[in-house]
Amino acid sequence: MSTSADPPRDADDAHLIEARVSSETVFQGNLLQVKRDTVRLPDGRLAKREYIVHPGAVLVVPVLPDGHLVIERQFRYPLGQVFVEFPAGKLDPGESPLATAQRELREEAGYVASTWQHLGTVHPEIGYSSEAIDMYVATGLSHVGAQLDEGEFLDVVLMTEDELLAVFDAGGVTDGKTVAALFAWQRHRQR
Amino acid sequence: MSTSADPPRDADDAHLIEARVSSETVFQGNLLQVKRDTVRLPDGRLAKREYIVHPGAVLVVPVLPDGHLVIERQFRYPLGQVFVEFPAGKLDPGESPLATAQRELREEAGYVASTWQHLGTVHPEIGYSSEAIDMYVATGLSHVGAQLDEGEFLDVVLMTEDELLAVFDAGGVTDGKTVAALFAWQRHRQR
Repeated sequence: MSTSADPPRDADDAHLIEARVSSETVFQGNLLQVKRDTVRLPDGRLAKREYIVHPGAVLVVPVLPDGHLVIERQFRYPLGQVFVEFPAGKLDPGESPLATAQRELREEAGYVASTWQHLGTVHPEIGYSSEAIDMYVATGLSHVGAQLDEGEFLDVVLMTEDELLAVFDAGGVTDGKTVAALFAWQRHRQR
Repeated sequence: MSTSADPPRDADDAHLIEARVSSETVFQGNLLQVKRDTVRLPDGRLAKREYIVHPGAVLVVPVLPDGHLVIERQFRYPLGQVFVEFPAGKLDPGESPLATAQRELREEAGYVASTWQHLGTVHPEIGYSSEAIDMYVATGLSHVGAQLDEGEFLDVVLMTEDELLAVFDAGGVTDGKTVAALFAWQRHRQR
């Protein structure tokens, strides 16, 4: 154990790192690809690691000129409930994160933005997924109308930040990426 | 689209909800179970949903009497890097979230706590996992020494909240559950 103000990522991490020995795809679905790798642990022994291979995703904090946020309500089948979320989506093959963010804001929420700022990156499930989410703040919004994919169903609602925080405080915002983005956006404005 | 200060979760959501038609386990590993369900969409058509079935997890914000936080640095193989994280772990079969939190804080970080407060729940990956993480603040800490599982390697570091926020602002805290917990802990103290 150590006490330090230095970013801990700068330390020598050889005593923590696992090295790939071999890798196999054990499930290939339409949405999910699962790999099972054999790794060499820091003490030299071997272990198995199962994880989702993910193409990457984006999230957008869309802020209207009057301060309202563009929020989505979407049923998420793995948890069987409707979630309050910032617009988000997966990268298409070859697509940049910013292009994905612009596409998702337009298609899902129905807005285009004149200004995009990168808020940072969050890794939603470091235990079993390679997913990284690039987060953006979009301002200078114009409403152009949503163009949902076939089979996609969601509501778009406008809320002030205070309204969204009141819903959070009441336990109504539990989507991890949305909570992380609220924190990143807050820190971004304090810098 | 609507503008409302009411928690959006109270609306009538029949136009969003997907209903299970059938379910099958398509991958059963040591860590991951993947299901593929057939669902009926709100418009009556059928679709497939692939997702991880997860037993649930916990996260602990451990606060020492002098204000330092007990933080872990751990290599996460799916992303190939060391992450700065709050102590966390999965529920064992039949184990309550609070018991899991107490076990993980003791085994991984080496502390017991006299006071536990529930901070809320976060769902880290609503797109493809049923995982829910119960978050706690632990105070009244006593150091008893860690007892890591075989094959588990991590560093325990003590950081003030300001030090952790400085690392966050520099891009060094990207673990989704840890960022979400920082936000939930902050809101908890403001209520």
